[in-house]
Parts: sequence; C-alpha cells; structure tokens
Amino acid sequence: MVLLLKGGREPIENWVAAFGKVLPDLEVRVWPDCGRREDVEFALVSNMPHGALATFPNLRFVASMSVGVEHLLEDPQLPDVPLVRSVNSQRSATMAQYVLLHVLRYLRRMPDYEAQQQAKVWQRLPYRDAKDMRVGIMGLGSLGLAAAQQLSQCGFNVAGWTRTPHSHDGIANFIGREGFFPFLARSDILVCQLPLTAETQDIIDARALAALPRGAYVINTGRGEHLVEEDLLAALDSGHIAGATLDVFREEPLPADHPFWIHPKVTVTPHNSCDGRAAHGAITIADNIRRAREGRPLVNLVNRAAGY
Amino acid sequence: MVLLLKGGREPIENWVAAFGKVLPDLEVRVWPDCGRREDVEFALVSNMPHGALATFPNLRFVASMSVGVEHLLEDPQLPDVPLVRSVNSQRSATMAQYVLLHVLRYLRRMPDYEAQQQAKVWQRLPYRDAKDMRVGIMGLGSLGLAAAQQLSQCGFNVAGWTRTPHSHDGIANFIGREGFFPFLARSDILVCQLPLTAETQDIIDARALAALPRGAYVINTGRGEHLVEEDLLAALDSGHIAGATLDVFREEPLPADHPFWIHPKVTVTPHNSCDGRAAHGAITIADNIRRAREGRPLVNLVNRAAGY
Repeated sequence: MVLLLKGGREPIENWVAAFGKVLPDLEVRVWPDCGRREDVEFALVSNMPHGALATFPNLRFVASMSVGVEHLLEDPQLPDVPLVRSVNSQRSATMAQYVLLHVLRYLRRMPDYEAQQQAKVWQRLPYRDAKDMRVGIMGLGSLGLAAAQQLSQCGFNVAGWTRTPHSHDGIANFIGREGFFPFLARSDILVCQLPLTAETQDIIDARALAALPRGAYVINTGRGEHLVEEDLLAALDSGHIAGATLDVFREEPLPADHPFWIHPKVTVTPHNSCDGRAAHGAITIADNIRRAREGRPLVNLVNRAAGY
Repeated sequence: MVLLLKGGREPIENWVAAFGKVLPDLEVRVWPDCGRREDVEFALVSNMPHGALATFPNLRFVASMSVGVEHLLEDPQLPDVPLVRSVNSQRSATMAQYVLLHVLRYLRRMPDYEAQQQAKVWQRLPYRDAKDMRVGIMGLGSLGLAAAQQLSQCGFNVAGWTRTPHSHDGIANFIGREGFFPFLARSDILVCQLPLTAETQDIIDARALAALPRGAYVINTGRGEHLVEEDLLAALDSGHIAGATLDVFREEPLPADHPFWIHPKVTVTPHNSCDGRAAHGAITIADNIRRAREGRPLVNLVNRAAGY
C-alpha cells in the first residue's frame, strides 16, 4: 500500500510528515523515486508530466494537490481511475478569508485611501453599507460556497452563479447561461471561483465586464484563463470597472513586463488566495485512502464529464 | 419639546430629516439658531463650545454625536444632566468592519504584497492560521466588543483588556493594571478601542510597545492621545513593531509634514473607522427622547466618574 507524492508548493517533507502522522502504516514515495511501480495504489500530485500516471498499473485513485484539476484532465493518457479533489475546510477557510479581505478592502475604499496617503490627502470618502454591496460569486463549489457564506455572515448581499441550481440560506442563485447576464447586472463586486473548463475559459470578457454595473470591482481567484486580460485593461481604462484584484494569471509568475504590475487600479497577489497546508490536506486524502482500503465509497470525486 | 443639533461630520440636513422620520412631532433646531433657550430639552452635539450648554436651563439630557465624550466632559460648565452616548449597532458594525479589514490585511500580509507589487516581485509569503493570530482589543465597550466578536467569529484568537471584568464567549479577559502587561505579551495585533480618559491618555507608549511580541502590529481606532507617536515611530524603526494602522491622531487632519504620512510601515486613514449615519443615530437618540417623555429610565448613559 503505497502513496506517491509529487508536490506542490509546500515542501514535500511536510506532506511526508503529515501522512506519517495520520496514516503511520502507509508507505510514502516521492516522485521521481517511485520504486516498483506496481506497488503504487494512490497518487497525490501536482503538475504531473502527462503520460506519467499511466505507468502505474495498480492505481486506485489519483488526487490533485490543487483544487483545480484541469491539468490532470488534460493528460491524454490519464488512467481510468477515480479522481479525487483536494478540498478541505482549511483550504476553503483561507480562500474565504482572502475574498472577505478584498471585498472589505473595496467596500471601505482602501485603494483610494492608500492613494490619498501617498498624496497626503485627508479626506473621508463615502461608502456603502455592507447590505447594499452586492457581491456576485461565480461558482459555488467548496471554495466559492465558503466565501459566499462568510460574506453573507458579514452582512453583504451575496448571489452565486452556478451551472446547476443551488440552495443556500441567504445566497441568491442565478443559473446557467440564462442567469449569467442578470447575475452580472447585480454584481458590484464580481468574484470568480469557477473551475477551468472549456465552458468557463475566457468567461470574463468585454461583454461580461460591460454587463457589470459601472464602478464594479473584479476579484479573480479562479484561473488566469477565466479572464480576458486585455478586455479587463480596457474596462479599467474606460472607467467602467473601478478596480481588480487578481491572484491568478495566464502566465505565472506574472511576467515583469505585464501591464497588471503597474496598473494603478490593479492589485496583484502571487496565487496565494487559497492555501493548502499539508497537515490539513493529508487528513482528507487519508480519509479516502481508508475508504478505498475498506471498500467504502470515495468522497470528493471529480466529475470528468463536467470537468471538475 | 425641542432638540438642539450641532453636527457632526454628516450634513446636518441628514439629521434633521432623520428625526423628521422617527419623531415627526419633535421640533428640531440647528445651532447656532437656538430660538428661545428655555424650549430646548435635548441636545445632540459635536464639539460644542465650552460653556454653551450651560445657557439652556431646561436640558433633560445631552448626547454627543461622537462615541467619545471627552470633549463634553472637559466643559467646566457642563450642566448636571444625564449624558447619553451615541452608540448603536450600525456604528459598531462599521467599526468592527474596519478592524476586521485591517486585521485581515496584516494576517494576509497585504502591505508586504503591495510593496512586492511595486517592485514586481512574485513571491508567496508565509502567514499564520487565524487561530494562531492573537488579537488584543483594548476596551470592550460597544465598539470594542463588536470588533472582538466579529474577529472571534472569523477564527481569530481574541482577548480584551478592560477596567472591570467582562465575560464574553470565546474572548479572553485581562483586567486592570495587573492584566495589562500579560495582555500585551500575548497580542500579535493590538487594537485600541478605549475611551480617552486621564487613565488611558498616552497608554500606548514605549513601555507598552516593548511588551508586545516582536513583529506585532498596532491598530489605533481610539483617540490620537492614546498613542505616544514618537514612541511608535521608534518601535517601527527598530523593527520591534512591524506595522501600524492609524485612524486617529493628536492633530486632525494629520499635518502635511507629519512623518506618519510617508512612513512605509504606517497606514493612515482619515478618522473614518466608525461611521455614525444620521438615519441610524436618530433612532437611538429618539428612543431616549421617548423614554424621557414617558419618565422611563434613559439608556446608554455616560458614567461621569469613569469618564466614558
């Protein structure tokens, strides 16, 4: 019973130590030192070279270190085994925290106050009550839902846009293509928490941005490919969009000559919105390993047809 | 039955309109157009000239537009009538929001990321779990308590320092002089929500700052006089204090030549942490006016001996 690991942004030793704690009898091997490939039954990987997973004949599931699984699904030789999503409450909490921070930052106009400080200007700026700030979350998966609930708890007017109907206390739901433009029209702050699929790529484009209320803000914590970067730049420069906080980009690290770095209305963070710590992540993966051992159904499975 | 108004940072017309809604039969006069001084039974004032209130012989209570009442109490001719504190849930909510924003901003290291963006540096920085970030709130009055509860709800490790014992779920309590240094020693982020009294003036001085853990942050939303500004600057420059967010100052507006404006570790906001909107404020003052009319006890009274 062997788990293969390929990290990840956290040092791989942390993962080895974390599994040592929660499943002491599990043998852990670290890519590329795989030993006998037949032994490997579980894989928890990040950016695995395409084709590599197919060389393990006895895999029982593959888990992705990141919440997004598009890199796995793009592997043309991906084995036909269950795919497990690395979601857990700690990850969701860090994402919800990031979203809350940046929504509050716009509500209370901190970018404007920071600019005022630079100019030594003492001036109070009007701002809305939280209940009058309409936040729109694209995607109510484990991350999007945690963010939506956190915002709702803090008094914001929250709606979610989803592919299929959702029902959560205090969170309005707009569904599918039909609901997309009405959802945008009521979103003063748009937060992207979508998985990256053929349907969601380039979804935040000129048309979507134009459908937001004038003066809206955009927070992208999904994937860089959700956003048409030049369309956002045009909408910022026209004044239609008041600001954007971007944690993900088409190219990461963001290239030094990219206009986002120096745009006065753009806040750049280095893909740190959601933080998967080994100590927490190992617990949920270990749960699925135990389930596989005991013949119980796995949890947090990827829907390959949906792409997430 | 006449209410005298003297604003305040919100346009006085908003207050007149708000009282027109909640107490349509109340006559409202705006300083300095007081009419017959004998008619005035209630006063809701901001920065009233000392001695002026003593010219109204039939006052039944005086309320301060701001939560702090030190300016009123400094009036040597202050009439011996009940003093009402302008607290209400909307005010507390905006303060709690400000404190949460700035605590999250430090937790998730936004000032560092903003500096990195200016230098086009893409680098993830370590940060704590909220439960490992110890926030210390000086003062658990209506504002401090709302902030403490909001932070506690968001997972932070919160303690309050108070003059008399408090008991609130999930909020540790340190009391009086004896509890002061132990409280500071466990505060990674210190938030001042104290009233300004002879005892609290200059309370955040070199000794207090030295008692905070190395790398601590300071958020002052109390009064400028709580903080010994040169001591903070020294502690920031020595590296003992990692950053400060200051909403109140000894001199407001903050003078253009003040070092806080340009200090890289200081965030300046223009006394906007707590926002008393007329629509909400009028409701709570009207409640006390009704109580006075009906001979019921007033609420939210200032304790003159304590100074708040």
